[in-house]
Amino acid sequence: MKHLNAITKISFIGSGNVASHLAGAFISSGLEVTEVYSPNNEHAQKFAKKYSCGIATTLKALNTSTELYIIAVPDTKVEAVAKELPGVEGIVVHTSGITSMNTISNEKYFGVFYPLQTFTLGRELDISDSPVCIEASDENVLKLLKELASKISNSVHEINSEQRRLLHLAAVMVNNFTNHLYYSAEQFLNENELDLDLLRPLILETARKVQDISPADSQTGPAKRNDLSTIQKHMEMLNENTEFQKLYQLMTDQILKKYHE
Amino acid sequence: MKHLNAITKISFIGSGNVASHLAGAFISSGLEVTEVYSPNNEHAQKFAKKYSCGIATTLKALNTSTELYIIAVPDTKVEAVAKELPGVEGIVVHTSGITSMNTISNEKYFGVFYPLQTFTLGRELDISDSPVCIEASDENVLKLLKELASKISNSVHEINSEQRRLLHLAAVMVNNFTNHLYYSAEQFLNENELDLDLLRPLILETARKVQDISPADSQTGPAKRNDLSTIQKHMEMLNENTEFQKLYQLMTDQILKKYHE
Repeated sequence: MKHLNAITKISFIGSGNVASHLAGAFISSGLEVTEVYSPNNEHAQKFAKKYSCGIATTLKALNTSTELYIIAVPDTKVEAVAKELPGVEGIVVHTSGITSMNTISNEKYFGVFYPLQTFTLGRELDISDSPVCIEASDENVLKLLKELASKISNSVHEINSEQRRLLHLAAVMVNNFTNHLYYSAEQFLNENELDLDLLRPLILETARKVQDISPADSQTGPAKRNDLSTIQKHMEMLNENTEFQKLYQLMTDQILKKYHE
Repeated sequence: MKHLNAITKISFIGSGNVASHLAGAFISSGLEVTEVYSPNNEHAQKFAKKYSCGIATTLKALNTSTELYIIAVPDTKVEAVAKELPGVEGIVVHTSGITSMNTISNEKYFGVFYPLQTFTLGRELDISDSPVCIEASDENVLKLLKELASKISNSVHEINSEQRRLLHLAAVMVNNFTNHLYYSAEQFLNENELDLDLLRPLILETARKVQDISPADSQTGPAKRNDLSTIQKHMEMLNENTEFQKLYQLMTDQILKKYHE
């Protein structure tokens, strides 16, 4: 490590969405993906073909001279995977939002490389604007990880495990829950023989708007303007749709409370 | 009306977000905004200056020879405003999602011109991709309104009052409630000395993703993958944040129910 000035060779443990998108971004930046390990051999082969890298058939078989090992596996498996790795001289990081860095402190050099974005297999995405949250076991590892992240993103942040855990929770809110609202709206429209296409431009503009301004300033709608008559009509329209009505009630109560109490 | 082949001159009743954005789009398409009426004289003057049109100081003073009158006022005021209009030969439309067309059936020719988008004063927005929902009192009015809408949007739809009411409710869900989630996340981050900037790229990508695919296919997160351990950790983190915890609980329950029951 004393002689490691930059990370140029990277191995992946895991071949899912996060691994694929990171590998693609690294290669575009001129870095080398050395090897991949995946418990699913078919996935490993597909990944290896796409990113022109080797395959380790077991964790123990991983090449031990790579400079960086990225554990991009489901959160619950990070710890077990790290413990099964062969002893390596390179840096080992995980990519999990909710997992403490110290979960992999059995490694010699370790850290976290957490891209704060939603990745979909098969969907191209320029991650240069996506934040990458970095945490590291020592100053040298921190410097190397920051430099690496800067090659693929304009938004690199040093974030500790506690902050990352909070960010991950907030990300669930703006990503998973927002998507559930989209889904609920689609269900409701389909039940009434209408199509979500009519709302797609609105969905996009709603997200674009808060790129520039605070969500508090962009709030609109019946609850924001204390329009109890419209709220009453909406609640009646939802009488036979319990799930949607519960969402409507809670959201409306919270917006009314914020702006009119 | 028999001799009206196209709408070229338009008067606005109301000078808020919807009126401003429509006026701007009409003028860009080579149409003329003739006049504006607003109960707030200062707003009327600002609007008249921006769109180079005249001002009617009262509803009764409106020029009666305009081809289209667009009532773009708060939902609850549409009916009263329509009743106060002078007798006109042109078409009168409102722009309200939740208001039935027949609310203004005292007019000779009437209809609805509902742009399904969120408008913010001072924020430029190309509305050519935004749906415009049209309803009309007769076939000729329908034809004229459709032609007009096609000049400013590529997405023109004939939608009746009942469908529009449903669309409006679904729009509240994907716009107002989504924005409330953004707001809740911002509050939560700020309480923990973190900034929403870290989530803005995620917010945008979440909305972009469902432009191409169904929200059911883009759902991710702890509830989607039945990750009860992460959900438990999140609930504990939210112990002192009741509002946020209620949102988390309801959303999570609904997602779990959909994918794991």
